[in-house]
Amino acid sequence: MSGANHPEQPPHTPTPRPGGRSARVRAEVVAATLAEVTATGYDGLTVEAVATRSGVHKATLYRRWCGVDGLVADALTASADQPWPLPDTGDLQQDLRRITHEVFSVFTDPELGPTPTALISAAQRSDAGATALRAFFATRHRQAAEVAERAVARGELPAGTDGAEVVRAATAPLYYRLFVSGEPLDARSAERAADAATLAARAGLFTPAEDATATPTAPEAGPAT
Amino acid sequence: MSGANHPEQPPHTPTPRPGGRSARVRAEVVAATLAEVTATGYDGLTVEAVATRSGVHKATLYRRWCGVDGLVADALTASADQPWPLPDTGDLQQDLRRITHEVFSVFTDPELGPTPTALISAAQRSDAGATALRAFFATRHRQAAEVAERAVARGELPAGTDGAEVVRAATAPLYYRLFVSGEPLDARSAERAADAATLAARAGLFTPAEDATATPTAPEAGPAT
Repeated sequence: MSGANHPEQPPHTPTPRPGGRSARVRAEVVAATLAEVTATGYDGLTVEAVATRSGVHKATLYRRWCGVDGLVADALTASADQPWPLPDTGDLQQDLRRITHEVFSVFTDPELGPTPTALISAAQRSDAGATALRAFFATRHRQAAEVAERAVARGELPAGTDGAEVVRAATAPLYYRLFVSGEPLDARSAERAADAATLAARAGLFTPAEDATATPTAPEAGPAT
Repeated sequence: MSGANHPEQPPHTPTPRPGGRSARVRAEVVAATLAEVTATGYDGLTVEAVATRSGVHKATLYRRWCGVDGLVADALTASADQPWPLPDTGDLQQDLRRITHEVFSVFTDPELGPTPTALISAAQRSDAGATALRAFFATRHRQAAEVAERAVARGELPAGTDGAEVVRAATAPLYYRLFVSGEPLDARSAERAADAATLAARAGLFTPAEDATATPTAPEAGPAT
C-alpha cells in the first residue's frame, strides 16, 4: 500500500498515484471518515470504525493517517480539492449572493448539512484538524476570489482589490452564526452578508492599506467628525 | 447553601441573594472554572478540580451546576453580566472601530486572550454550553446596539436600523477568524470589519426587510443588472 519511500521523502509519505490504488483507498477512507464523523461526532470517532466501514486495514490507517485527527484533517483536505461551480452572473452582488445562499442552503439542509457541520466541528478539536481547517478556508476563499477578480476586470471594483478578502467578508457572518454564536441563519441574513461585502468592496475597503478608503464616505452625510 | 425551595420553583433553583453567601460562592466557582478551563481546556476540566480550587464542596457543585457543562455555561452567563464600557465618540464608525479593536486586543493578548478563548471553545462542546454561548452573544450584541441606536438618534443611520445586527456584522468577521477559519487576526482586519459594517448600516442594510435597500447603489456605478 505505501509507495516506495525515496530517500528524500519523509517516511510514511504516500506516493500519489491519481486514479491508482492509493487514490481509491484514500477516497474510501475519506468517505468512511465523513460517514463516521457525521454519525458519531468527534467524540465517537474511532480508527476501528473507519477501518470497518472502509474495508481498509487499521494498520494502514494508522500508518498513513496516524489516527482520528489525521483522518479528519485529510477529509477536509479532500473536501477543499472538490471542484465546485462558481457563479458568473456578470455582477458582483449577485455572484456573492449566490455564494452565501449556497453556504446557507448546504448547512441548513437536513440532508446535506450534518456532514460539513460535523467535519468542521471535529477539525476544531485537534492541531492537525485546525491546520487543515485553516488551509480549507484559505483554499475556498482563493477559489471564490475569482468572482471579485472578474468584477475588478469589469471595472466594478477598484484595481488591487483582495478578492479572497471580499469572499471572506461575505461568508464570515454565516460561519459566525453557524459555529460561534449559534444564532439562527436565514436566507435574509445570507443575502445581507453578500450585500454588505459588495458595498465594502465597491468602496475600496479591500484594497491594500495604502490605497484604502480609510474613512468611507457615508451615502447620507454623518455628523462632523 | 441551597435556598429554600418554594413550591413554584423548579428543584435545585438557587435563590439569588446578591452580595450574599450564594453570590459569593457563585463568584468563587465562576473564577475557579475560568482558571481551570484556561489551564486544561474542556477535555481536562473536572468538577473535582473546580471544587479544590474554589473551596466549594463537590456535592454543592453537582447540586447547583450539575457538572462541568453547567459550570462552563454559568461562567459564560456570569461573563455576559459583567458590565463593559461602550464607546461614545459621536460617530458610528469610530464607535464600531473601538468595539472591534477591543475584541481584537483582548483575544490576541497573551495575558487576556486565553481565558475567553478557552471558555468559548469549551462552551461549543455541550448543549448547555451552546445555549449559554448563544445567550452570551445575544446579550453582548444587545448591549452594544446602543452605539447604533445613538447613530439613529443623531440621524446618522436610517430609522428602524437593527442595532444588534450592526454590531453583529462588525464583530462576526473577527470571531470567524478566531474560532472557525483560524486565519490570523490583525488590527487592520478589525478596523475593516467595523468600516464595512458602518457602510452597510448607513446604506440601510440593517433596517427591516420591507424598508431595506435591497440593491445597494455602488459608489462607482456597477454594470447594468
